[in-house]
This record gives sequence, structure tokens and C-alpha cells, in this order.
Amino acid sequence: MSVPDFDNIAKQFVEFYYKTFDENRTGLASLYRPFSMLTFESGGTLGAEAITEKLKNLPFEKVQHRVDTQDAQPVGDDGIVVLVTGALMVEGNDRPMSYAQVFQLKKDATNWFVYNDIFRLVYPAA
Amino acid sequence: MSVPDFDNIAKQFVEFYYKTFDENRTGLASLYRPFSMLTFESGGTLGAEAITEKLKNLPFEKVQHRVDTQDAQPVGDDGIVVLVTGALMVEGNDRPMSYAQVFQLKKDATNWFVYNDIFRLVYPAA
Repeated sequence: MSVPDFDNIAKQFVEFYYKTFDENRTGLASLYRPFSMLTFESGGTLGAEAITEKLKNLPFEKVQHRVDTQDAQPVGDDGIVVLVTGALMVEGNDRPMSYAQVFQLKKDATNWFVYNDIFRLVYPAA
Repeated sequence: MSVPDFDNIAKQFVEFYYKTFDENRTGLASLYRPFSMLTFESGGTLGAEAITEKLKNLPFEKVQHRVDTQDAQPVGDDGIVVLVTGALMVEGNDRPMSYAQVFQLKKDATNWFVYNDIFRLVYPAA
């Protein structure tokens, strides 16, 4: 058994996630649960409330994400793992930065939510 | 409940995985199961046998991975998700290439194995 429509669910999630991140970061709260985990540039945060606080207080006011690739795989019948790579444009900084982010989505009775979230900037290899 | 020692297990896995990849690629077969999934630069492969075949036939003979970052999170009491970023040095190519790779490890009766595996090269954002 696996999630029938995992690819579309992942695509819709990714679109919604970065649009919300870039336009109204506190709106991300509803995507996390009390047991959700975020690792952002090695720092770990547990739970929707702390994660929203962390995202709200990132050291940039305005940011724009550009998604370059997104690849999803199903995990059993209630999970989806997605790897996103792209670029981050931060206000006041001309150079976009590459990033990689992995989400593990899980489904509760009615909704998909983020169980795991790991974000890393990726610096040019040489 | 969560995997008590997930960080160490992830570290040992990552070290073993890339060492084996770089020295004896066919040795990776034991890390996958018949239902394991690999997405390599968007192409999808299912099952240990097909995955090993795919990895063996990648268009480079000699390759070296350098791991720059690795971040792990537990998933319930039998899973670990790991995001690795690093550089790939391919024989005959002077420029290392950045990559991001996510593994979802699961535990069966005795061993950890790879359930999900997604690999992407990451190009400089600008």
C-alpha cells in the first residue's frame, strides 16, 4: 500500500508552503503538530509553536524561495517524503543562495501535516 | 517513543554508505530491500536489485563523496530521516559538484535499511 496521489499532494504542499513562507510566515503554524520537528541549519526545534516562533524570528524580514527541483516518494499508506532544492533570495542581498529542504508529510484523520522538516543552505562545492 | 540513538546510527550509516559507494558500489545492495525506493536526478527505481544495477551503471567509474553536513531526525520508534549535503568529485572532472541526498532508514528485526533515497545535484543559485 502506498499513498495513491503522493506526487500531486507533494506538489501542492510545496507550492503552498513556500508561498505562505514568503507572504505570511506565521501562516505556517497550521502545517505543524506538537510533535513536529524542524532542523534549520543544524539547530533543532520541536513542536508547532516553537517552530513557528523560530521561523518568524529568522534573521531576515523579506525572503523569496525559488523551487528548482522537487522529488517525492510515498512512505507506507500515510506518509510522503519530499526533497526540494532551490534558491533563497533574501532582501538586501543580491546573491541568491542555494538550499536543500526535506519534508516528511504524514496524514492524520483529515489533513496532511509536516512531521519532519530539515533545511540546509548549500554552498558551491568549489 | 523515538529511536534513542538516531544521531549515531545516522552518522555510522552515512559514513558506511559513502565509503562503500566510493570503494565498492555493488556492496550497497545489502542496504536496500525489495520495496526500497531510489530517486536519482528525477528517475525512479524500485527494489534492491534494480537500485544496485542503477548505481553500478551511473555514468562515472570513479567517484568520491565529501560530506559537508548531515542532519538526522527520528521518525517514531523505527525510523530515521537524514539530510546530507556535500560534494561529488568525479574522475576526469576537476570541479566538484554540490549534492543533496535524503535517506529514510527503517529497522527490521535486526538491521537498519534504506526505505527512501532521493539524490539531487545542486547547482549554484546564480
